[in-house]
Amino acid sequence: MSPSMSGTLRLLTVDGDGLRFEARIGDHAVVADNDSHAAEANPVQLLLASLAACEAMDVISLLRKKRQVVTAYEVIMSGERAAEHPRRFLAIDLLHRVTGRGVLRAAVDDALRLTVEKYCSVYHCIRPDLPITNRVEIVEA
Amino acid sequence: MSPSMSGTLRLLTVDGDGLRFEARIGDHAVVADNDSHAAEANPVQLLLASLAACEAMDVISLLRKKRQVVTAYEVIMSGERAAEHPRRFLAIDLLHRVTGRGVLRAAVDDALRLTVEKYCSVYHCIRPDLPITNRVEIVEA
Repeated sequence: MSPSMSGTLRLLTVDGDGLRFEARIGDHAVVADNDSHAAEANPVQLLLASLAACEAMDVISLLRKKRQVVTAYEVIMSGERAAEHPRRFLAIDLLHRVTGRGVLRAAVDDALRLTVEKYCSVYHCIRPDLPITNRVEIVEA
Repeated sequence: MSPSMSGTLRLLTVDGDGLRFEARIGDHAVVADNDSHAAEANPVQLLLASLAACEAMDVISLLRKKRQVVTAYEVIMSGERAAEHPRRFLAIDLLHRVTGRGVLRAAVDDALRLTVEKYCSVYHCIRPDLPITNRVEIVEA
């Protein structure tokens, strides 16, 4: 028996041309909006954030297990989209910038390799012909 | 020249074991958290919401162009995940429940077909061997 996940997405802007939706999954709410002036991210931005956060959670968990002293961790995300419909991502680049005290490059490289090969649920849902580049930068705190 | 998208994801829980991240993309903020007690969605939940919202935005846009009178639109989302790492989605089911006055099934079926075949950016980023079932239910308001 596999674990399952469920929820409901609801159109908030029934009247007019708005494209604002709220998803409820478990106790969590996620709002997506496709108005460029909106406060909320659009679905493609959510996808990029989802991928980066999924990888980053696995990487930081592994770095903690490896007793690396991390004082800041950022992922600089960029994605290139097709100009034509369906305007999907053609390439994604994730630069993992790990700041800390004496953080070992081998530890970060190994954490990233395990994340991509074994752990990251979102990464493994993405089509394999969409290149996802993961790079590492280590900054001494 | 293809359009591009960029942003930064940042670890909010530097101390302790927390896995809370904030992504900034454009003017938008997205928080992801992997604590089961957290207020925010985890990355896999974000992915499911992203897919459903992306499809639903295209579907409602097409229904509006077709002059269908929609008074409510929900997508009941469910996803089955692998029990083993990387615990990716094995199957996703999206039930599009369109409530309205005299909404034509053919219009909804056609909108959904166009969404999946042509328009949905997130759908086309998902690996093709992950089955995504889209179903339609029409409710008279």
